[in-house]
This record gives sequence, C-alpha cells and structure tokens, in this order.
Amino acid sequence: MIKAGIIGATGYAGGELVRLLSAHKETEIVWYGSRSYIDQKYADVYRNMFRIVDAACMDDNMEELAEQADVIFTATPQGFCASLVNEDILSKVKIIDLSADFRIKDVSVYEQWYGIRHQSPQFLPEAVYGLCEVNREDVKKARLVANPGCYTTCSILTAYPLAKEGLIDMGTLIIDAKSGVSGAGRGAKVPNLYCEVNESIKAYGVASHRHTPEIEEQLGYAAGEKVLLNFTPHLVPMNRGILVTEYASLKRKTDAEEIKAIYDRYYGDEAFVRVLENGVCPETRWVEGSNYVDIGFQIDPRTGRIIMMGAIDNLVKGAAGQAVQNMNLMFGLKESEGLELVPLFP
Amino acid sequence: MIKAGIIGATGYAGGELVRLLSAHKETEIVWYGSRSYIDQKYADVYRNMFRIVDAACMDDNMEELAEQADVIFTATPQGFCASLVNEDILSKVKIIDLSADFRIKDVSVYEQWYGIRHQSPQFLPEAVYGLCEVNREDVKKARLVANPGCYTTCSILTAYPLAKEGLIDMGTLIIDAKSGVSGAGRGAKVPNLYCEVNESIKAYGVASHRHTPEIEEQLGYAAGEKVLLNFTPHLVPMNRGILVTEYASLKRKTDAEEIKAIYDRYYGDEAFVRVLENGVCPETRWVEGSNYVDIGFQIDPRTGRIIMMGAIDNLVKGAAGQAVQNMNLMFGLKESEGLELVPLFP
Amino acid sequence: MIKAGIIGATGYAGGELVRLLSAHKETEIVWYGSRSYIDQKYADVYRNMFRIVDAACMDDNMEELAEQADVIFTATPQGFCASLVNEDILSKVKIIDLSADFRIKDVSVYEQWYGIRHQSPQFLPEAVYGLCEVNREDVKKARLVANPGCYTTCSILTAYPLAKEGLIDMGTLIIDAKSGVSGAGRGAKVPNLYCEVNESIKAYGVASHRHTPEIEEQLGYAAGEKVLLNFTPHLVPMNRGILVTEYASLKRKTDAEEIKAIYDRYYGDEAFVRVLENGVCPETRWVEGSNYVDIGFQIDPRTGRIIMMGAIDNLVKGAAGQAVQNMNLMFGLKESEGLELVPLFP
Amino acid sequence: MIKAGIIGATGYAGGELVRLLSAHKETEIVWYGSRSYIDQKYADVYRNMFRIVDAACMDDNMEELAEQADVIFTATPQGFCASLVNEDILSKVKIIDLSADFRIKDVSVYEQWYGIRHQSPQFLPEAVYGLCEVNREDVKKARLVANPGCYTTCSILTAYPLAKEGLIDMGTLIIDAKSGVSGAGRGAKVPNLYCEVNESIKAYGVASHRHTPEIEEQLGYAAGEKVLLNFTPHLVPMNRGILVTEYASLKRKTDAEEIKAIYDRYYGDEAFVRVLENGVCPETRWVEGSNYVDIGFQIDPRTGRIIMMGAIDNLVKGAAGQAVQNMNLMFGLKESEGLELVPLFP
Repeated sequence: MIKAGIIGATGYAGGELVRLLSAHKETEIVWYGSRSYIDQKYADVYRNMFRIVDAACMDDNMEELAEQADVIFTATPQGFCASLVNEDILSKVKIIDLSADFRIKDVSVYEQWYGIRHQSPQFLPEAVYGLCEVNREDVKKARLVANPGCYTTCSILTAYPLAKEGLIDMGTLIIDAKSGVSGAGRGAKVPNLYCEVNESIKAYGVASHRHTPEIEEQLGYAAGEKVLLNFTPHLVPMNRGILVTEYASLKRKTDAEEIKAIYDRYYGDEAFVRVLENGVCPETRWVEGSNYVDIGFQIDPRTGRIIMMGAIDNLVKGAAGQAVQNMNLMFGLKESEGLELVPLFP
Repeated sequence: MIKAGIIGATGYAGGELVRLLSAHKETEIVWYGSRSYIDQKYADVYRNMFRIVDAACMDDNMEELAEQADVIFTATPQGFCASLVNEDILSKVKIIDLSADFRIKDVSVYEQWYGIRHQSPQFLPEAVYGLCEVNREDVKKARLVANPGCYTTCSILTAYPLAKEGLIDMGTLIIDAKSGVSGAGRGAKVPNLYCEVNESIKAYGVASHRHTPEIEEQLGYAAGEKVLLNFTPHLVPMNRGILVTEYASLKRKTDAEEIKAIYDRYYGDEAFVRVLENGVCPETRWVEGSNYVDIGFQIDPRTGRIIMMGAIDNLVKGAAGQAVQNMNLMFGLKESEGLELVPLFP
Repeated sequence: MIKAGIIGATGYAGGELVRLLSAHKETEIVWYGSRSYIDQKYADVYRNMFRIVDAACMDDNMEELAEQADVIFTATPQGFCASLVNEDILSKVKIIDLSADFRIKDVSVYEQWYGIRHQSPQFLPEAVYGLCEVNREDVKKARLVANPGCYTTCSILTAYPLAKEGLIDMGTLIIDAKSGVSGAGRGAKVPNLYCEVNESIKAYGVASHRHTPEIEEQLGYAAGEKVLLNFTPHLVPMNRGILVTEYASLKRKTDAEEIKAIYDRYYGDEAFVRVLENGVCPETRWVEGSNYVDIGFQIDPRTGRIIMMGAIDNLVKGAAGQAVQNMNLMFGLKESEGLELVPLFP
Repeated sequence: MIKAGIIGATGYAGGELVRLLSAHKETEIVWYGSRSYIDQKYADVYRNMFRIVDAACMDDNMEELAEQADVIFTATPQGFCASLVNEDILSKVKIIDLSADFRIKDVSVYEQWYGIRHQSPQFLPEAVYGLCEVNREDVKKARLVANPGCYTTCSILTAYPLAKEGLIDMGTLIIDAKSGVSGAGRGAKVPNLYCEVNESIKAYGVASHRHTPEIEEQLGYAAGEKVLLNFTPHLVPMNRGILVTEYASLKRKTDAEEIKAIYDRYYGDEAFVRVLENGVCPETRWVEGSNYVDIGFQIDPRTGRIIMMGAIDNLVKGAAGQAVQNMNLMFGLKESEGLELVPLFP
C-alpha cells in the first residue's frame, strides 16, 4: 500500500483527493492535513466521509509527513509547496503539487503573474509538468510533479494535437473558458456566496488570469513557437465542470474527417480522453465525477476557423483525478487505477 | 457473471442502473431496453456512457429477455411489469421491479391509488418488498422483488426503529418530504422544464400521493397496527436527493441517548444506514451518488414530539442502488458489491 | 417626499429596501448606512444600482440620521436597534425595525431565544407588530414598528384565519418551512457558499429556531390560547422564496368550500394576500419579486387534518416589502404605494 | 390607452410582455393569444398573474385582432408573422414582430439560415430593425418593426461603437455568447428538462446558429463593410440573462480612456445602456428583470486585442422590453415608459 499524505485536505480539491484515494485499492491515506481544522474529525468537515474516514485533521508539517508517507499531495495556495520543499524531503517522498509553484519553467514569468517570490527555483528544472497524456514518460521518473491547473488541463488538451501538427495559426488562438464554482475554492468570501453566483454569469480575470502563461508555455512547446493568446475565464452557476471553447484560424484547407483522424491518432489509445463523433459538442454533465476529457470541434468554412471544445470535471481531471493519475504513473501502477469512474448523470 | 437486462434503460432510474451495473464486478448488462430509442446507441442517449457502453437500445420484449438474462430490472411505468410477468418467465429469471406493481399487498388499495387494474394479482403474495434492511432474509429467497419507491425508502427507514419499538404515536405521524427533480422522470413535460422548476419550491400530490399507502403498509407492519398518516412531497430545484422530515408525538418520556441507542441497535451493522451523531441533521449533499441513508433526529421537549430526518440519493438508495442491493442478496453476492460508492461532494 | 434612512443597506434585505424605495414615488432615500462599506459608492457594492443610486455608504449613526430622515429602517442584526433607540430619537423619526428586537412582547422570551440582553425593554409595550393584515390600525399610529420575520410572516398569515375561527387544534400545529438562501444573509460564511448550498437540502435550527416564539405569540393572540408548536426551517437551493407547509387537526367536520370562504372573508379585500382556488398549491416562483402571499390548502379526510400552504418572497413580503407597506400605513399613504409589483417569472 | 394584442402570450417572451404591459400606464392588453391554451384563463397558465390578469387565452386570429388593437406583438415561431401580415392589416394596426421574419433584409439569407420560404418578402423593405439605440428615428415612423433577437441585441450593442468608429478589425471578430435557459422557449422537450440543463454547460449551434447573419448584417452596416464572424452560443443553467464576450484585434494603438470615451459618446445619453467603469466586467445578475444593457471591455496589450463584454436580460432587453421600447417610440410615448425597472438582485 502506498502511504499518501494530503496537505490542504479540506479544500475542494483536497476533498476530492480524499474521495478518490479512499476508493483506490493501492493507497492508504495517512495524513489529512488542514491547518484550519486541526484535531477536528475529517468527517465532521466533509460529512460525506462519515463512517468512511475516521481520522482527524492534522497540521501542515511537511518534514514529519515526509517520514510517514510515500507521496505527498499539496492542495495548497501558491507559494506553500515552494516554501517548504527541500532536497531532504524529496529524497524521502514523492511530491505532487496541485498549486502553480512548479508549473512554469521561467521563474520570472511565475513571479510576474503570481506576484510572489519563488522560494525554490532550484527545483524548477527537475519538476515535471504532470499532464500525463503529454509527458507520461517523464512523469514516471519524477520526484516532483507539478499538477496542471484545471483551466489549463482542459485548454491544452483540447488544442494540443492541432497545435502540434501545425494546423492552426497560434497567433489567432482565443480560449473562452467556463468554470463551475468549486474552482473558486472553499474560502469564505462574499463573491462566492450562493446568492452572488446563482442565476448569473460573468467573465473575470480578463486578459490577466494566471493560467494564461501556463497554457502559453505548454502550447508553445507543442507548436514549437512562442505563443501569446487570449484566455478568458467565466464563472458558471454549477458546482463542477469546465468547458473551453477555443477559436483559431486554420493554416490550410482541411475537413472534419482529417481533423478527427488527427485527434484519434493522438488520443485514440488514451484511457481518459474521449474524442467525440463529428458534430457532437462536449457538455460538462457527461464527464461529471469522472477523469474524462471530452473533446469535439467544428470547422467554419465561412471564416476559415476551427472551433475546438473540451469538457472536464475541474475537481477530477482538473485537479485530484489527474494527481492520482500522476501518482499511478510515478509508482508504476496501472495508470487508470482508482480512476475508472463512470460519470454521474444527472 | 450475472446477466442483467434492463427494461426502461433510458429513464433516470434506468440510467443509474446502467451506471452501477457497468461498474459492478459480477454483472454484465445484456439488454438495454428502451422503447423510445430502439436501435439507437445507448451512449448517444446517455453520453456519459460514451466509450463505456457500446450497445444499442432494444425493445421491451420480456419473453425474449427471460431467455438471455439471469435478472430483469423493470424501470418502467406502473402496470408494465404486472401486465407481462408470468410463471414461465419467473421460472427462468429473477425480476426486480422498480415500479409500484408489487409493492402493495392489498390489490384494492393499489387499484384505488393508482387508478389502474392490476394484471397479475396472483404474484402479489410471493413478491417480496425489497427494503433490504427490513426484509433481508426474504429477499434472498425471492424470485420477484418489488423495489421500494424513493420517497418510501427514505420515509420508512427513518421512522422504522421507533415505530417498531412503539416509541411514537403512529396516529400523529406526519411526513414532509422534499425531492430533487430526477424523481419526476425524464418525460418531456412543461412542469419539468428547467425554467419551471428552477428558483422555486412547491408541494404537490398533497393528501393524495401514491407513495402514501406504501409507507402506511410498511410502517403498519412495524408498529403492529393500522397506520394512517400525512405524506406531503415537495419538488426542490436540484437534480438528486430526498430529504424527509417526520414529526410524531413520543409515547413516553425519553432522551436523545436512548433514541440514538435504538437507532444504533437497528442500524449499527448496516452497511448503508448511517445514524448521525446527536444534533447533526442529514443533508442530501452528503449522500449524493451513494447508497447511503443518513438519519438524524431531534427531540422537542416543549411539544413532546420527536423530529426524525432522513436523506438519500433518490436514484441510488431510492431506486437503482437498492435494486442492485436486492440483486446482490438474491444471487448470494456480498450485499454491498458494486455499491461502495463514496458520496460526491460538492 | 418622505425622507428615508436605511441602516444595514448592503445586506440583502437592505438592498431590497433600496430597490423598492428607489421606485417609490413618495420617498427619497437620504442615508445608505453600511458600516462595512463606509464611503464606498453604494452602486459599487450593488451594481444593479449603477446609474440609479449615486450616493456613497455612510455609517450607522442613528442620532444624526434622526435629524435628517422621517423614517429609519434598521435592517441590522438583533440587538442593534434596541441598543440605540431612545425617546429623543423616537420623538423625531419613525422607526421600522427589521430585526427581532421589538417583535416579542415578553422580554424574557426574547432574551432566552436570542441569548442577548434586551437594551430597551421600555419600548416593547408601544412597539407595534407590523403584520399589516392583522394589525393595520395600530400600525397607522405607531412610532416604532417591529417588522415581522420572513418565516413568521408566511407562517402566521397562512394559519391565521383558521386559528382565529377556532377551526384547528392549535396543539397539533406543525409548520414545516422552506427558504431560499438570501434568508441566510450576506455574511461571508462557508455554509452559505455556492457549492455548500447548491444541489442539497437540509433542515436546521430544528426545535430551536428563533422565529418559533414569534409565531407562537401571534397565533396565540389569534387563537386566544397559549400555543406551542413545531417549526422546522429548511434551506433550499434558490435565491428567494419561502414556502410553508402547515399541518393541523381540524376540530370539526368541514369542507373545502367552507375553508375557502373563511380565507376569503379574511383576505378577500387584501391587496397582497391571494387565496388560491381550491386544489391549487402555492409555489414560490409565482410570487418572486412581489409583495404577495399566496395561500392554498388541502383537507385530508383520512386523517382529519388540514394542510395549509403559503408562499412569499422572503425579501419582499418577508422583509423590505412589508416594511414599505408599514411605512405607507404609518405615513397615511396608499397601502400598496410602490408595492404593485408584478411577480417575475421565470 | 393603447390597445395591445399579443400573439404567443404564453411563451416566455409573451409572458414577459404581459408582465411589462400590465404595469405600463398607457397600455391595455386586449388580446392574450395562445393557440395551446384557448379559453383557459391566462392566470391559470401563468399563476404569477393571478388577480392581475382576469382574461382567458384566445386564438391567433390576426385579422380580428387588427380590428381590436392598436398594436400587435407577435411572439411566435419563425414564419408565423410573415404568413399572415398583409397590407390591410398593416393599414389598421402597427406590428412588432418578435420573430426573425423581418430582421434580415436579404430574403435569400433568411431562407438559407431558417430553412423556410419567406411568405411576405414585399414587406421586408419597409420593416424597421427595431434596435432602438441604432434606428430610433426609423422606428418612430414604422408600421412594422422587426424586434431584434436576444443574442443579437447584446452582441451588436456591445461592438457597435467600435465597429462604427473603425477601431476593430471586423475580420477578427469572435462572439462567444452565454444564455440562460428561458431563451430556449417553453416547449416540452427533453433537452430543456431541469435535470438535463442543470449542473452543465454546453455550446450549441456552433458555426450555424441563426442569429449569426443578423449580427453580421447589422455590424456590417456599422462598419461599412461585409462582415463574417464566428458566433457561438452556450446554454447556462440559469433562468435569465445573456452575456457576450467578444474578441477583436484593434486596428491601431489605443487605450482604455479612449475606448471608454467612445462608448460614452454613443451611449452616454441612452436610458438603457450602462457603460461600466474601466475594469468592471458586466454580470447578468446586475441587469435581471430590467431593460439595461451593461457594457464593459478590457484591452490586452500583449495580443493587441480588445475583449468587449455585454450583459442583458434576454426576456427584457432581448425580447419584451425592447418590444415595449419600440412601441413607445412608435406611439410617441416617452421611450422609457413602463421600462424603468430596477434590476432584481439577488
């Protein structure tokens, strides 16, 4: 049994890690870290876990945790993981960091978009960007995995094959993203109150959202060129789900069959990417609770653009599910272990 | 592998059966019956099942199905199962009927509340009311199980121990129930449109809802007396979940400790009933997607009443999950096989 | 023009007062009190008011406000109004208090249920309970009106005629109430976050909710006897609306026609109470945004009980609308001035 | 009093017309047309209108209606108005058509996108496109007004000043739109059921939605060039509201102050367009129930694009409110008569 510790176990991503790891046959959770609820029973905070989890919450002691666990998941705010990780810890335990600390290779880009000083830039070169479908082999060998952001996962995977194949003009790429409210976290803030979010939709972080450079960096690797794009997130009144609608000009004439064939070539063998049949648009309801990414597209011959669409559950493939997928790879388990979740509908 | 056939596989309860049986290790679905979608791919109707279910929908041929399956689930409107079942079919296959056809022993009560003629009253004596926690031993031996209604399951289990122990005055019992919209089915009706249901709550079927006699009959067995009660269902703008709030006068002085002890005695060993700690009220979010029944209570010394509360996922413990639990018992499997579902939150 | 001051203008009830008074032809708002947002533009907090309200938020200075206003609305937590009101203030300005401070005549009951010391019990005798349909004449002469609670307004008006006429056994009265989330206020608390409330329903304050003694006192006046009852509030995932479902045993044989006639006798001339036709149940969607109370009922001859149901918009008839109705009465205006709001659907 | 007839009075747009016209001081509704509910009381269909509207529904007899009314609103499916309108009717009554029949000047474009034959192309030249802020003077003189679509109103007004001023490259314009569910109408269809829409978001009509050519035509007039663009609608789980997010490359260097000044120049005197302060994004909750269009923008210097955003209530400014605004203009009333609606929040 792999011993897993979670820091930030009472946030929504942390809670989802608990849900997934509780049902994972090769894992045992040994540490429910939650600074806010130390010594309270975990199941008193997340009552869905009543009679499933008996443990109490513990503090965020990463040194101590490194002694007890084989893998640490940090589902914590930016800066936390980078401020504590060190060579000693990494020599004892693998770390899967769900924050942005190790996602961006260029420390100056990180510091500019996040507005904080990076405390451990020395680990950036070794950190692997844990988008399994793209970096699978590197993940297998990693000690430190930077688990991709929720918007990012969906945005990148949706455009990746066409960027890689050079079919779209990267300078025209626009990503309009829509997220459920769990993506905003469990902090007690007025803008996240039920009555503030319900029956409304808004854009936020326009031209300034922190996931932008992460998407640009990864799609830049795929396209083999520097990419600047517009990414606009929106808040949708629903608990879970991210939908991205991506627009780009096609660099040459093509058709739906060719595009479909490309997507199938990249994703046909992937356990968690479902390329939809031509003409079918993804909807977040069809992936809820699962680790799937559903991808569809539509060519507009009038404008010469392609509209690519992707849907994920932000807490699963966008956070905890992908983290578990990374863990499976890092420990040599079956990649889909504990993740063969049938989407819940309705 | 148990071969399972589903009639009514594209309704919400049928869809949930597909979700649960797809993940069940001892079962294989051999028949996706759906009159409305014959020959269409099941996954074109329920796209969450894309790449999971490859089969197409078939008609509702119970005779043919009896040849191919070990168990038939009928997730169909009232009257369907009773109109088709016969000795020949029952000699070949076990039937779990999710409709009301075999829930009420007194055929005249059934005909009065449902307004239709019962086509197979000869099977009423043998049909077992499939509330596993109450009738476990009978279910194990049954050929024909009447799977309880969603409101009923929650209403009965919440009051059962106190009714059985004679602690509450059954003549004072009032059940105020609240259900998510999936309980209203997948029929295309104006009152179930998004804009008609969203941002509103209403009572319906007041003093006339068909689950009333079913609850009265079962609690009557428990109390050892004829029971008449008020049951008022309400429609709540959410997909899943039933909450019942039940009021009854206590027949004698008691306290929370004693009541808790009684509940624990009845349910302490049950895999799917969670008696909450004193002072904790059940919430439907904590059971979503799972087969749990969460039960809590509060004594009001001012009025001499006890308020009992129960929460279930109407599509799981209130329909498909309980049906699978019954199947497990009927086939000698572990009762919780395929049902160890961690509730999904948020 | 009546000069109105609002203390607590940035809570949900306060915001609704601003909406209603902005459109009221005889009123001008002179003071937007909000301790949390002093000096910020009101329309920066409630952007629906952009280009409608130009003023900035001010502090909660009741002395100063008494100089400038003809009427003060206190949409503030319990204890605030009672701690500041005095004879000097009341000699200059009328006060409509939306908190509970002056609703309960018996100061010991108030202190027991609210757990705070009452700072101005000397004004309790003169304070008028502002349920206009019941206490209209007293309201007209009042200096200090205690605006009823949201649950209370709906609960009392729904049962009032039958209590008054002695048709129901008050000892059997049970009120099961369901409220939208705006009733929980705009405080930044985890339990009110979108993801905590959405897709769930729960009871809370079971056998202990503070609106209980207020309902008991008022229905006690109607029935002419001391009343003890069960009141159970539930939180429903919707912004606005309260539905109450009330159960009581009938004291004698009656029928729907007689009951309807009684309701019509009490409410037939009321501008804001709509007695529904027999067999029709109230739904909160039909009163949203308006000052209406919709009332329906169903007799159950099997149990000898009547089920009474009422629906209001908690922020209008349950708070701000009723406060304006009281103001209209206190200042000799047409009672429905500014309140002829057509419900918004969907 | 202007006598108004509504055909299609029981759809959502028709219902909103009833709400607005009921409260309009210069109007009286003389005809509640609804083929589906002939002879049923209007208030039995829309119970919010109980005690407000006493009339019964009538058929769709436009000839007869022309005798009784001064203005006819057709809130009907495409093809209806065009199939019935004639010179005789137009000589007696003004028509405001909420369908698409007279929105597109080029009949072949209409027939291609809508897939039906236009029955009255002879009236296309005279029909005025009723976007009041753009075509105010023409509307005043019109007999036949084509009331713009909901997506269209929001899409056009958001981009109009910059298109007109030649600031944006029209060939790069992309409109990503999000709508509440009332935009899908009141038809009893499975995809609009509560459980199908709730907790999900999807794109639909990608590269093929019928509002595309309408937007292209109108923005083409503004820009003085033929415009082809991508318009992608999305369905959002909320009752009301449309948000558009529009992307375009700027044709020259500019800044927020200049853009704001342009918007203010176009819209500063408009009663219903609110140009938000720099940095503020529109949200549908702030316009709900009102006739406002809220517009904001953000320049992205990294990509040289501007992101323009607009929000409306699809049933008010996107349908019934704009129709009343047109009526006011056509009859020489104050343009905002009956439309000074304070947005309802929450």
